[in-house]
Amino acid sequence: MKAFVYRGPGEKSVEDRAKPELTSSGDAIIKMTKTTICGTDLHILKGDVPTCTPGRILGHEGVGIVESIGAGVTRFKPGDHVLISCISSCGKCEYCRKGMYSHCSTGGWVLGHMIDGTQAEYVLTPHADTSLYLIPPGADEEALVMLSDILPTGFECGVIDGKVTPGSTVVIVGSGPIGLAALLTAQFYSPAKIIMVDIDDNRLNVAKTFGASHVVNSKHANAIEEILAITEGRGADTVIEAVGIPATFELCQELVAPGGVIANIGVHGKKADLHLERLWSQNISITTRLVDTVSTPMLLRTVQSKKINPGQLITHRFNFNEILDAYDTFAQAAETKALKVIINF
Amino acid sequence: MKAFVYRGPGEKSVEDRAKPELTSSGDAIIKMTKTTICGTDLHILKGDVPTCTPGRILGHEGVGIVESIGAGVTRFKPGDHVLISCISSCGKCEYCRKGMYSHCSTGGWVLGHMIDGTQAEYVLTPHADTSLYLIPPGADEEALVMLSDILPTGFECGVIDGKVTPGSTVVIVGSGPIGLAALLTAQFYSPAKIIMVDIDDNRLNVAKTFGASHVVNSKHANAIEEILAITEGRGADTVIEAVGIPATFELCQELVAPGGVIANIGVHGKKADLHLERLWSQNISITTRLVDTVSTPMLLRTVQSKKINPGQLITHRFNFNEILDAYDTFAQAAETKALKVIINF
Amino acid sequence: MKAFVYRGPGEKSVEDRAKPELTSSGDAIIKMTKTTICGTDLHILKGDVPTCTPGRILGHEGVGIVESIGAGVTRFKPGDHVLISCISSCGKCEYCRKGMYSHCSTGGWVLGHMIDGTQAEYVLTPHADTSLYLIPPGADEEALVMLSDILPTGFECGVIDGKVTPGSTVVIVGSGPIGLAALLTAQFYSPAKIIMVDIDDNRLNVAKTFGASHVVNSKHANAIEEILAITEGRGADTVIEAVGIPATFELCQELVAPGGVIANIGVHGKKADLHLERLWSQNISITTRLVDTVSTPMLLRTVQSKKINPGQLITHRFNFNEILDAYDTFAQAAETKALKVIINF
Amino acid sequence: MKAFVYRGPGEKSVEDRAKPELTSSGDAIIKMTKTTICGTDLHILKGDVPTCTPGRILGHEGVGIVESIGAGVTRFKPGDHVLISCISSCGKCEYCRKGMYSHCSTGGWVLGHMIDGTQAEYVLTPHADTSLYLIPPGADEEALVMLSDILPTGFECGVIDGKVTPGSTVVIVGSGPIGLAALLTAQFYSPAKIIMVDIDDNRLNVAKTFGASHVVNSKHANAIEEILAITEGRGADTVIEAVGIPATFELCQELVAPGGVIANIGVHGKKADLHLERLWSQNISITTRLVDTVSTPMLLRTVQSKKINPGQLITHRFNFNEILDAYDTFAQAAETKALKVIINF
Repeated sequence: MKAFVYRGPGEKSVEDRAKPELTSSGDAIIKMTKTTICGTDLHILKGDVPTCTPGRILGHEGVGIVESIGAGVTRFKPGDHVLISCISSCGKCEYCRKGMYSHCSTGGWVLGHMIDGTQAEYVLTPHADTSLYLIPPGADEEALVMLSDILPTGFECGVIDGKVTPGSTVVIVGSGPIGLAALLTAQFYSPAKIIMVDIDDNRLNVAKTFGASHVVNSKHANAIEEILAITEGRGADTVIEAVGIPATFELCQELVAPGGVIANIGVHGKKADLHLERLWSQNISITTRLVDTVSTPMLLRTVQSKKINPGQLITHRFNFNEILDAYDTFAQAAETKALKVIINF
Repeated sequence: MKAFVYRGPGEKSVEDRAKPELTSSGDAIIKMTKTTICGTDLHILKGDVPTCTPGRILGHEGVGIVESIGAGVTRFKPGDHVLISCISSCGKCEYCRKGMYSHCSTGGWVLGHMIDGTQAEYVLTPHADTSLYLIPPGADEEALVMLSDILPTGFECGVIDGKVTPGSTVVIVGSGPIGLAALLTAQFYSPAKIIMVDIDDNRLNVAKTFGASHVVNSKHANAIEEILAITEGRGADTVIEAVGIPATFELCQELVAPGGVIANIGVHGKKADLHLERLWSQNISITTRLVDTVSTPMLLRTVQSKKINPGQLITHRFNFNEILDAYDTFAQAAETKALKVIINF
Repeated sequence: MKAFVYRGPGEKSVEDRAKPELTSSGDAIIKMTKTTICGTDLHILKGDVPTCTPGRILGHEGVGIVESIGAGVTRFKPGDHVLISCISSCGKCEYCRKGMYSHCSTGGWVLGHMIDGTQAEYVLTPHADTSLYLIPPGADEEALVMLSDILPTGFECGVIDGKVTPGSTVVIVGSGPIGLAALLTAQFYSPAKIIMVDIDDNRLNVAKTFGASHVVNSKHANAIEEILAITEGRGADTVIEAVGIPATFELCQELVAPGGVIANIGVHGKKADLHLERLWSQNISITTRLVDTVSTPMLLRTVQSKKINPGQLITHRFNFNEILDAYDTFAQAAETKALKVIINF
Repeated sequence: MKAFVYRGPGEKSVEDRAKPELTSSGDAIIKMTKTTICGTDLHILKGDVPTCTPGRILGHEGVGIVESIGAGVTRFKPGDHVLISCISSCGKCEYCRKGMYSHCSTGGWVLGHMIDGTQAEYVLTPHADTSLYLIPPGADEEALVMLSDILPTGFECGVIDGKVTPGSTVVIVGSGPIGLAALLTAQFYSPAKIIMVDIDDNRLNVAKTFGASHVVNSKHANAIEEILAITEGRGADTVIEAVGIPATFELCQELVAPGGVIANIGVHGKKADLHLERLWSQNISITTRLVDTVSTPMLLRTVQSKKINPGQLITHRFNFNEILDAYDTFAQAAETKALKVIINF
């Protein structure tokens, strides 16, 4: 089968690989129908994720059709259309039993990282019963690709941890795909104001069409004053960090109201300054989270009942034989205005 | 009346001052019977708290007897024995209505800071109805002095924000009075293990008698390994920072388990490094809090029902005319083994 | 001044009464600009509320302008446009301090019940600082009349206690004004399905325009089966009782899913059967609540940010000299299709 | 093997039965070492549980040693000492994924009910990985038998659902084994008062030694007044129903404070009156729950750290060949003063 393979920092290739085979009673083999590319895949290609070794098939998102199942799989059968979660969860370990699937002792984020992933014609998914979701007949499967990772990540790490509530004020720093996923899902809770912050005016324009009440370009000298003015000088109840660099995390510290939350979605590569000399008395909390995907069944219901349209995040479509173009388009988002790209098999 | 007055960095004096007079309908004048000294008072004396200006009578803790009340005071009458909260709360503003008394728009921590405090024969308390607590007849008033500040601070900032639960594992970094207050109140929730950390063996010995299951001297080279071993390598569910310097906050980051909380009680004077490059995926939260004293009524009930004995924190007693000695004793805690000192009027 | 007065069961009159005068330092006198009629007012008129004695001016809802204030009032001044809460809250007692204003030891639901109410040209409001809300300039004051009682009641008693969450399934039994207020505010949390139940097709049609995903007329023989079918046989996560009779409360018991909640908004006059022989193992909860109006500031923000339009509930408008007609129209809602009626001064 | 078998209403026997064999990849066979008898077993014997058919081996509690495992079992191996949960949980279905194991779509309370149980030399446990718990070396295995059912039931259904908090007031109606289990575990949260109610003075005496602050015999005419007096006339924050008959449930309604909770542990056979005409405005909640056993790992930790001693509940010990005597002793608890009886294999 054809597969997209990481070959070491800066090196990638499309290769012929053997079709995976069931190795454990909980496994399933999925014939992929749609996948996508994540910002994390770009990090891997740069060599920023040393736990991902050369030769790895990338990809941790997508939908497909069950091809075969291990003896212990009871909730799926060949032919089922399934959504693949970016997080594999055994359902048995202490972490899984308390809903922290991201830290599953035999799972977590392994797909396209520690084991071969979804950017290939077939993928083996471990712990299939607790890591796949049945797609209801008639669903928009393309839109559901957004539920593998980006939507639960924006929702769980940003909105849930950020404790967004009706009538509250939310700032989201970063209007890339992940910030926009937080913007879409924050609206589940009807905050009074959602202020999107970015340095790219195109992305801020997209944010307006996705439901932002205010947008602020943080390149401008008085961006902090501008945001504080929108919050009547108090700062925001929820500040969501959706970039992942020290500067934006420190910006968040300027924007949080007493009693508020800074919820990190961003994947950070460096330490940052925490201004405890000011924040110690501000009754705030700061959260970090690798997505658990516990919200996936709920998100499926909200998509089915049209409370949210994650298909809005999709800007480009490719066939799998064009995956190198897809990577280029996604990597050059400032020029191509790409958010999420769909790759069809 | 006699009063203990801050006279600028390094300068303090006992002075004759005019007895306070009611200025607002919500005020009460309290004749002090017992007060104490807080670590914050020492910070003020060093000049570390610029919002406290020379000439200020210090002190934000104590018990006394209502001497007179303003026209709007309905819950107290002259002669009532009362506990004075370190936080003044109007009960009306947006912050007070949501239980965040520390940020009361006309109160908060003002006593012995923005207005004259309790280290004097009389004190004026603003917002008396919502900042004083009636002492039940027969109560141990000396022990209740611990409920002005240190017990609610340890409990709210450390134990509540730290989400201590039955069967969980707690580390408290710092075994001074505030860490010990957290230790006492953490036991309300029956954690399986409470590990106290300090560099003073005497304080660690005290911690053992207060209910710590383990103590670790962090001067030792392998302290982190030692603590992690007690938690079976996972780290603690709750890590309480009760010192207030970058080194101890950074130690906390080494000790928190995935899914855990770092709850800051410490008053910080400097920024600290936050290791987001490691913590971003650990599903943790970090909290800060200036005590709200919302828990005071509950703490009163637990003292009355003998679920806790805050009198254990008291090591020394002085008369008010010995207050300079009391300050010396408290300031040289390493030698004097002082925890909390009581000053009687 | 003119006032609408309860004169004993079945007896009502419009009378000349003395304008109220300030009696306590926390009081305010409000010149009414708009009021409305509540179902509770009809109950009083029937003699169902014995704590309300003849001679009482009715009414616990409305907006007006501050005419004068007591010496202790600090948050309002004459000329301020204010929303009057149906619940008076002292802000000081144990219940108020924990947000249970409905049980304020010197307040609660007293207006138009234990003391004279808002269906008069002027009203005295006790505990003004903590029972009135400033109306922002430019606000739609008519719509805000819905925030005195019906909207916080539907929201707190139905939606908050009912734990409505994104993607969940909600049944609201009763599509009168209070059920519709629950319907409007349930949408703050983006449930996947909201099923409205009533025996009046007109009200069900209104419910559809207010955002119900499904409507069911419970006069039909197979109503229960119909509702269960919409929930895939499981029952609803949240069932809101918005009628107040044993039959509808028992219907709710048929409709709740395992793990779900039955939230009572209805004012009940009789005991009901609780089918513990079936429900004991269903992991459900049942809640009751007299509104606390703790959510009023939040509701004001959602109205100001256009997340909700409570003006939709207003079907009729009268001048105060037509108040007897207003009562007739409201009392004969099945014929007049009245929901809420506005009375202008 | 020898087994205790239900033979129809009023009929029981000890029989020779074939040793169970693995049928599914998730099964384990456990060689029993200790079991016990539950009140539910007595109900079955009376014919009150029609879903349990004649021929069934009873018992849903106990500890034992893993004899053999199915191919899909990964967390246990032959020779492991294990605690058997009364609830079987697949870990995969929608209910299990949200922690509601009691409603597992292929499990729940099946042992000794829908499938053969633990009152036999060997038992087959389905979903072994997610329904058994490893017993740490050196643990008191007899005490751990209390963790199969009674301790998590008292804790989850009574204490957790009842929202017991530090400084609060708790009433437990019923001082049998289950009420006493609630009493033991309520102390995890340091309530100020725990009032035990029963009609058996012996059980009330036991309750005192287990930590009750007050005991009241409800046969006395003024029991309600007596209890209310202990709560200063307010009623209790938490009222736990641990009997399961209409009279005691109705008593609970008299004892709950405004804002309080009535948590049902009792297994009810009949409907009861719910006095909504009084309770509608009292801001209370009523909960029901079949135990989920989600708290078992936490309870294991509290036993290991000696925060609780469930062995206190054990009053009698028998060998399995005396099981008929054990049933007699347990059934005649008023005379024998039996709480829990241990049956050794």
